[in-house]
Amino acid sequence: MAKKAAVLMGSASDFPVMERAVAELKKLGVTVECHIMSAHRTPELVTEFARRASDEGFGVIIAGAGKAAHLAGFCAAHTILPVIGVPLKSDALDGLDALLSTAQMPPGIPVAAVSIDGALNAAILAAQILAAGDPEIARALELSRTRMKQSVLDNDAALQTKY
Amino acid sequence: MAKKAAVLMGSASDFPVMERAVAELKKLGVTVECHIMSAHRTPELVTEFARRASDEGFGVIIAGAGKAAHLAGFCAAHTILPVIGVPLKSDALDGLDALLSTAQMPPGIPVAAVSIDGALNAAILAAQILAAGDPEIARALELSRTRMKQSVLDNDAALQTKY
Amino acid sequence: MAKKAAVLMGSASDFPVMERAVAELKKLGVTVECHIMSAHRTPELVTEFARRASDEGFGVIIAGAGKAAHLAGFCAAHTILPVIGVPLKSDALDGLDALLSTAQMPPGIPVAAVSIDGALNAAILAAQILAAGDPEIARALELSRTRMKQSVLDNDAALQTKY
Amino acid sequence: MAKKAAVLMGSASDFPVMERAVAELKKLGVTVECHIMSAHRTPELVTEFARRASDEGFGVIIAGAGKAAHLAGFCAAHTILPVIGVPLKSDALDGLDALLSTAQMPPGIPVAAVSIDGALNAAILAAQILAAGDPEIARALELSRTRMKQSVLDNDAALQTKY
Amino acid sequence: MAKKAAVLMGSASDFPVMERAVAELKKLGVTVECHIMSAHRTPELVTEFARRASDEGFGVIIAGAGKAAHLAGFCAAHTILPVIGVPLKSDALDGLDALLSTAQMPPGIPVAAVSIDGALNAAILAAQILAAGDPEIARALELSRTRMKQSVLDNDAALQTKY
Amino acid sequence: MAKKAAVLMGSASDFPVMERAVAELKKLGVTVECHIMSAHRTPELVTEFARRASDEGFGVIIAGAGKAAHLAGFCAAHTILPVIGVPLKSDALDGLDALLSTAQMPPGIPVAAVSIDGALNAAILAAQILAAGDPEIARALELSRTRMKQSVLDNDAALQTKY
Amino acid sequence: MAKKAAVLMGSASDFPVMERAVAELKKLGVTVECHIMSAHRTPELVTEFARRASDEGFGVIIAGAGKAAHLAGFCAAHTILPVIGVPLKSDALDGLDALLSTAQMPPGIPVAAVSIDGALNAAILAAQILAAGDPEIARALELSRTRMKQSVLDNDAALQTKY
Amino acid sequence: MAKKAAVLMGSASDFPVMERAVAELKKLGVTVECHIMSAHRTPELVTEFARRASDEGFGVIIAGAGKAAHLAGFCAAHTILPVIGVPLKSDALDGLDALLSTAQMPPGIPVAAVSIDGALNAAILAAQILAAGDPEIARALELSRTRMKQSVLDNDAALQTKY
Repeated sequence: MAKKAAVLMGSASDFPVMERAVAELKKLGVTVECHIMSAHRTPELVTEFARRASDEGFGVIIAGAGKAAHLAGFCAAHTILPVIGVPLKSDALDGLDALLSTAQMPPGIPVAAVSIDGALNAAILAAQILAAGDPEIARALELSRTRMKQSVLDNDAALQTKY
Repeated sequence: MAKKAAVLMGSASDFPVMERAVAELKKLGVTVECHIMSAHRTPELVTEFARRASDEGFGVIIAGAGKAAHLAGFCAAHTILPVIGVPLKSDALDGLDALLSTAQMPPGIPVAAVSIDGALNAAILAAQILAAGDPEIARALELSRTRMKQSVLDNDAALQTKY
Repeated sequence: MAKKAAVLMGSASDFPVMERAVAELKKLGVTVECHIMSAHRTPELVTEFARRASDEGFGVIIAGAGKAAHLAGFCAAHTILPVIGVPLKSDALDGLDALLSTAQMPPGIPVAAVSIDGALNAAILAAQILAAGDPEIARALELSRTRMKQSVLDNDAALQTKY
Repeated sequence: MAKKAAVLMGSASDFPVMERAVAELKKLGVTVECHIMSAHRTPELVTEFARRASDEGFGVIIAGAGKAAHLAGFCAAHTILPVIGVPLKSDALDGLDALLSTAQMPPGIPVAAVSIDGALNAAILAAQILAAGDPEIARALELSRTRMKQSVLDNDAALQTKY
Repeated sequence: MAKKAAVLMGSASDFPVMERAVAELKKLGVTVECHIMSAHRTPELVTEFARRASDEGFGVIIAGAGKAAHLAGFCAAHTILPVIGVPLKSDALDGLDALLSTAQMPPGIPVAAVSIDGALNAAILAAQILAAGDPEIARALELSRTRMKQSVLDNDAALQTKY
Repeated sequence: MAKKAAVLMGSASDFPVMERAVAELKKLGVTVECHIMSAHRTPELVTEFARRASDEGFGVIIAGAGKAAHLAGFCAAHTILPVIGVPLKSDALDGLDALLSTAQMPPGIPVAAVSIDGALNAAILAAQILAAGDPEIARALELSRTRMKQSVLDNDAALQTKY
Repeated sequence: MAKKAAVLMGSASDFPVMERAVAELKKLGVTVECHIMSAHRTPELVTEFARRASDEGFGVIIAGAGKAAHLAGFCAAHTILPVIGVPLKSDALDGLDALLSTAQMPPGIPVAAVSIDGALNAAILAAQILAAGDPEIARALELSRTRMKQSVLDNDAALQTKY
Repeated sequence: MAKKAAVLMGSASDFPVMERAVAELKKLGVTVECHIMSAHRTPELVTEFARRASDEGFGVIIAGAGKAAHLAGFCAAHTILPVIGVPLKSDALDGLDALLSTAQMPPGIPVAAVSIDGALNAAILAAQILAAGDPEIARALELSRTRMKQSVLDNDAALQTKY
């Protein structure tokens, strides 16, 4: 049976961005579980979740966090599943703090950082990882690519007519 | 049969950093191919390689590049395999340019960015991705983690004696 | 016959900024073609366009893109025509990511970066390049300069009266 | 009895900077314990240490870490003791990554960030915190201030003679 | 008797952010005094306040300031009490100027920097410092932590039902 | 007759970087003149040079400058020839100051910014601009591209043998 | 007779910020002239103005400009009067570009940079420079300082009553 | 009698950079006093010096400091003499911290920031300010400009011969 994806975020206020990941994963046929859990306010929960994630049938973890974004790195410390970090933009510094806190992991414990507020890309990357074990997801990804290409072509065609 | 990992870099001068990825992948039991190919000087080669990577038995692509680091994104445009980007530090800006060029991919085509010069972590992340299809790699990753922990414990013990 | 200018952008959402380039080029008497094509979603199209650009009568390519802005560099890899990159501001980092991704090209494949959202300046620079082969464009550029100067003088005169 | 200070660091390579904290704390009469433990490689150890720190007689924790510096925040998640973070400069980005990862903690779990590589100041700040419960430390801090002033005066006097 | 906390800010316009510190300190049972005084416009006042703070029963000083945020460092120069600096975001540079001016103190005179606009965390850190001398504050901090955890759990539960 | 390229720099200390532009231009068959003249120390000279550049047979101006790099913009204000700016790295800020001063030109007066210390790319871009009027330069550029590709292929082949 | 101050700006759109300088200078009793003139669009005008400024009775020049802010440096190249640069925030990069372009002048030709959008401070600095030759301005500056202090005291008193 | 210039620095380690200011001031015929005094370690000294500077015959104060560079702003708070700040590069962040701490002063208390490590330019700016009251200094400045121009011309001539 195909592996699941987990979408974690540190705070309820992160949901408007992170739900794009949930929606995209579903569209690509990935089973997804979504949780609010904080590296700093509920560290035991995160530890527990990350440790058991593989046994619970997850194949990849997406973690979104802002500012000194530790959630993804914290998960990565407790599992050998691939962990994708989504740096979230917050009130100050335009997301640079979260990007550096997510990407600049120390040697030995990697996090796969995507772009600032890049929940959509995190979902696609997660699906690309899971696709190795599920040809349905691979097909969904190929189809999505084809639609993206077509959308660019359509936009260009529309531009030509109106210009 | 287990999937292979590709390690690509844009220039021969990137090899001293990127060979850490090759070494780590081998240590983790991953079959690896390593190539110099440039998004800007040999784009056809990169296109060809990325397009055929899945059929050639690759399960993940690691691409290291500096400055306006396009190599990882360029690969990602031609495959649905997961692509890991290693931003390389060059003469100016201390790697910030490469980090942003690698991580800030547009919606639809993700790249998994690791830390600046983080070839080691790219290799571990690649192994984590391939481990889903190969329990040997999973075991090697777990063993590596155990050794890392032990090394920290040993260093702390050494510190206590000398202090 | 005078060479044409191409104005490319990665997404329909870039048009509000990039159309300033189209408008300015027309004002300066340059024949312009405008296309939406993406380095990551339609790489074949960009490759094809850039490769044939010179034969199709283009003398310069303007490419606008945001975030990990690869479009200009991608074009430059496939042509020896001068390529002008317009770094576009997007949701995060205030355009710094696009500026670095555009300007910091590796040795051998240059891109001419203008300012963030500087579509107007890209158009003028393109016209300056094409003016070598078309005295009409040179005259239009000189005239535009004269008008800019006059506008500054008029604004200063207006300031003196109201002060 | 006076509270102790803990000086933690993620890696043995951090010791050359962090030992300045140990030396200064001793000079100020603070009992200090120093450990290598990593938020990512030995998270259980850090959790355990931070949870028991107050009961073990610690009054403050200093944690030094580079890159995506999570160690201080990770400690802070497990104790209500004040935690001081020392952002360490590493190979890239000149310490900016560690500073942001240390200072930009989310609401609810503070870390007291000092300057990049500021182990000396972390020690003084720790002593200032412990001085509330130990007049000897307060006296040592006052004395140290007096010496700093005198040193500035001496340097200025030396400058006047040689000029 | 328990020590008091001082909350200082350089300008009345800083109050909307800094009053979060005052409110949180009161919630945690800390006696607080709040003043507007400027390092640059009323330096004598700041000098006088900082010098007498310890004798007046203060155990910690919180100072919020924007731009070239000198207020915290200025206080720290005149007392051995721990001083917490809150870098405030102003019109330009998104708070980076204030963060660097607060955190990058020279050797000898530490300031404990919290996150940009992090008045809430400054208050919690101040309470953590004062809790050493007042078990009531320690209990309030523990209770606040428990509530934060519960709030995360509640938010996650709510997410599960609506998803 | 083919147009010439000018290579200007603000100070003799810029020559070690800027001479790469001179060398590359000669290799590509472009006639080049090279001058030290400063926007701030000899503004009249720069004004005079830029004004007469077109009449003197120049088709493009390359200007290298560090710090608040005004030389390229200053030239651009006095000519409608395309001006290429090379931001030079100096003692502080790793070239970011020069990059922003070069690229962020105001509307109406464009500068074509290349990468930090990118004198080589400035030369190639200049040759690409001049190639429109000189098929010899176009051929030299195509040949140079072919050699770059071959060099990448050779490096990759060498890597395969030694690996 | 007292020297005059000049307030220059590159574009009419800079006036809303720069008029604060004009207003403050008048309040401090300084005679002021205000002009729109552009380093890039009307360089001859700026050259002429700066060259004659001393003879025309000016004692200081304030120049406000955004992006690659060259106006202040351009003036400084043509006069030995002190030139104050006001870096103006524009659409991107939050004023960092203008700050670096203004402050990072090359050796030999200084510009006195004030804060981003700091037209008010530029006016006060100009008055401080002119005050050496005019005791009335010195008195006005002292009075203004006294009022600033009083305003801080009043705001603090108001805070105490409402708290 | 002509006014004096003061050159202040926070630490003896700043002298190698700041002595360039002393040397240049002497070359320009300005009487100069040079002191080590720290805003944080000897604040009373700085307060006293700045308050009495005008009465002691100083016409301008130059203050060099690194990191959270408060010395210039601190002086400015205690005098209406013009204060010039030299941001000094230290171990981390390449001087950006000192530049922002120096330039981004709050409304009402200006500091004239020069470039990072720009002690030479600080001296010239100070001389430009003092030249209003001393025609000898004005002549020295004009002469220095002439020599700078000649040096550029000589360097260019040398370049022409060797090329």
